Amino acid sequence: MGKTDWKAEAKALKKTVRKLRNPISGASDAPAPVKAPNPVSPLAPAAFPDLPQIAGVEFAAVAAGVRYAGRTDVMLVRLAPGTAIAGAFTRSSTRAACIRDCQEKLAAKVPAGAGAAIIVNSGNSNAFTGAAGQSAVQAITDSVAAALELPGSRVFSSSTGVIGEPLPFVRITDKVPDLVARLSDSGMAGAARAIMTTDTFPKGSAATVKGEGGEIRIAGIAKGSGMIAPDMATMLVYLFTDAKIAAPLLQKMLSRQVGDTFNAITVDSDTSTSDALLLAATGKSGAAEITARSATAKPFEAALRGVMMDLAHQVIRDGEGATKFVEIRVTGAVSPEDAHRVGMAVANSPLVKTAIAGQDPNWGRIVAAVGKSGAEADRDRLSIRFGEILVAEKGWRNPAYREEDGATYMQQQDLVIGIDLGLGKASRTIWTCDLTHRYIDINADYRS
Amino acid sequence: MGKTDWKAEAKALKKTVRKLRNPISGASDAPAPVKAPNPVSPLAPAAFPDLPQIAGVEFAAVAAGVRYAGRTDVMLVRLAPGTAIAGAFTRSSTRAACIRDCQEKLAAKVPAGAGAAIIVNSGNSNAFTGAAGQSAVQAITDSVAAALELPGSRVFSSSTGVIGEPLPFVRITDKVPDLVARLSDSGMAGAARAIMTTDTFPKGSAATVKGEGGEIRIAGIAKGSGMIAPDMATMLVYLFTDAKIAAPLLQKMLSRQVGDTFNAITVDSDTSTSDALLLAATGKSGAAEITARSATAKPFEAALRGVMMDLAHQVIRDGEGATKFVEIRVTGAVSPEDAHRVGMAVANSPLVKTAIAGQDPNWGRIVAAVGKSGAEADRDRLSIRFGEILVAEKGWRNPAYREEDGATYMQQQDLVIGIDLGLGKASRTIWTCDLTHRYIDINADYRS
Repeated sequence: MGKTDWKAEAKALKKTVRKLRNPISGASDAPAPVKAPNPVSPLAPAAFPDLPQIAGVEFAAVAAGVRYAGRTDVMLVRLAPGTAIAGAFTRSSTRAACIRDCQEKLAAKVPAGAGAAIIVNSGNSNAFTGAAGQSAVQAITDSVAAALELPGSRVFSSSTGVIGEPLPFVRITDKVPDLVARLSDSGMAGAARAIMTTDTFPKGSAATVKGEGGEIRIAGIAKGSGMIAPDMATMLVYLFTDAKIAAPLLQKMLSRQVGDTFNAITVDSDTSTSDALLLAATGKSGAAEITARSATAKPFEAALRGVMMDLAHQVIRDGEGATKFVEIRVTGAVSPEDAHRVGMAVANSPLVKTAIAGQDPNWGRIVAAVGKSGAEADRDRLSIRFGEILVAEKGWRNPAYREEDGATYMQQQDLVIGIDLGLGKASRTIWTCDLTHRYIDINADYRS
Repeated sequence: MGKTDWKAEAKALKKTVRKLRNPISGASDAPAPVKAPNPVSPLAPAAFPDLPQIAGVEFAAVAAGVRYAGRTDVMLVRLAPGTAIAGAFTRSSTRAACIRDCQEKLAAKVPAGAGAAIIVNSGNSNAFTGAAGQSAVQAITDSVAAALELPGSRVFSSSTGVIGEPLPFVRITDKVPDLVARLSDSGMAGAARAIMTTDTFPKGSAATVKGEGGEIRIAGIAKGSGMIAPDMATMLVYLFTDAKIAAPLLQKMLSRQVGDTFNAITVDSDTSTSDALLLAATGKSGAAEITARSATAKPFEAALRGVMMDLAHQVIRDGEGATKFVEIRVTGAVSPEDAHRVGMAVANSPLVKTAIAGQDPNWGRIVAAVGKSGAEADRDRLSIRFGEILVAEKGWRNPAYREEDGATYMQQQDLVIGIDLGLGKASRTIWTCDLTHRYIDINADYRS
């Protein structure tokens, strides 16, 4: 008998080890490629805001190489015992395993006593990955629960990125000890970076509210750039506050505000399978508990809305390929649903979006989009404005309107399109961006 | 007193004449600019088909300079006495004056005795042009009625092109005598060219059916390239046959077939304000009349469907910027409405369309589009195919699927995407094209 071929055996063993570390059939263990970042959106805010520390919230972020090397792509949040949690999620019927898991855990109403955690990865959405996808969620949340000594039912997870690819979850669980070691109460900006995918800038926003007996702080981060449309937030959003407030009231406030903010934006009409918003209230501020009747309830909800609106607008400002930030104000509709429908039909019309990209005041395309929306509309009562410029009214171009004025207006970076249906009192404002070559560049080779 | 300044007076008179010839406030009489044609779509058929002459139908086309000079942009069709007419139109609530006029005239069920006519212009859609738009329709149809000695109620008109600009209708009425003089029973190909706007090739199709006692011919032309989506045909389509058939039965057949053909295509989800389909049956063939019970009814309807399908596909093959012809076959839906919804959600998804443009087999985006459609769908029953390649089934990637196979498949020009929802028996096929840089080039400066 010949000598053992150690080289061959080592090779086979290496293969086995790889398989064991990536139990999902098909998950690749090939080293993650490096990807150059996209140029920053021209609509980006000048700087990332100074986010206040929220007592009871700690962050950590690492580069785990989920999809690309050299990019922080996993973030962990530890929430102090007593934290109340609320959430809003995509209504997609093909939503990812982590979304279903979050929804089940929130519905179970586990007492807040034990604290909680949120773990998020970018690069792979773990959507449409079948039973293996559920196992991956289980493995990740179990791993965090064990490391932080939390019940698994209080560990929430999100995944964002490519759909249908098995999630190489061991790359994430391997990093959990490292993440735990890095937890810091000043890590929110790093966390905002870790959840980016095609985003060109990290998104953060904050507010403070005067509570009874102390100040209440709210701060949040979001990611989102393409595949942005209702329903729900169509992106990832994590909001934190040190307010003391019970989970049911927190949820009520969140649900009330999500319609006018994250559900009123659209980049490309495509709804993600992975959209999630989690709002955590640690109760660590010195202020008294907020109840439905306390004087702080309204200002707190208003501040929360402000942070949500700011983040929603930042997502549009980072819309894939965007060069224009467009506000569509619909008024005079017979119902809020109709106003929403008209706003979304205009915001999602490729012809309207390309006209805006070309700085062409082509208001006829707005008329056509109103007509196709399915909402009640009467050509002879419709009026259209670019900012303060009255373009058309009563089914007819305003005789005083000059095309040059429209063309000059369209050169602005921030545009307001007013559509009055002249039928009722309902209104709705929708935010969107234009459709440019860059959107196609980004999306015609997102995976390659 | 000085001498009369004849030059000044002549100038003033010229201005007055111009005004009189263009009574619509704002209608420009500036000479029409010349516009270079777009390069022909790579998906275009090799040649325009040989269309048979249809007895009782005559065509004429002229260049009237409605918007651009040197382009045939008005066509006239004369239909022999006894012609039955059926139609289908956009359901847009902001539809153009000519659409409302056609609908009223068809609803009035004027006896076919006197013959009929169709006049169509491209370059200006006369949509959202208020009362002046209605006057323009009246002037054009009256002018044709007078010239052809027809009742005005039997003259149908269509306008296609830019929205919201006053139609310089005198340019059209001035050409009516010329059009009448040019009427010829072999002019269908020229008519197909006259109705083009951003189209890169003229669209025609024909079929023959063996009737009782003679052959029946069907031939049609269409225009459409952008702003293509239901509801209805979202383009202009004129179909002619020498069949003898009563208008109510003709309308029934047309209405039955429009759903699977023109209402099953989409380029960009944008519904036009001006879409119209008119189907005229002259009764001049030697074959016996087609009634609901005659043996010819079924084959005639099938042939009609064939012509409609062919033209609908040609519109997609001329989709603005299209480089791929995509068939989306939805099966296993709980209802035909759900199947339609899923097909349209996938066909209209910018992310799916850009992935196809990039030849990226990004089936995850198909899953996401199914999820957002609003149709009943169960992630764990869904399966997806590229042609014959099974990509995913039961909420999970097919283990045998190799990305390379998908990538190779996507290089084809004609693609079939199969989506089985695994829930019921309803199905629907939708046709669309990809979303490319060229779409943005065309639409970001359509008017300039």
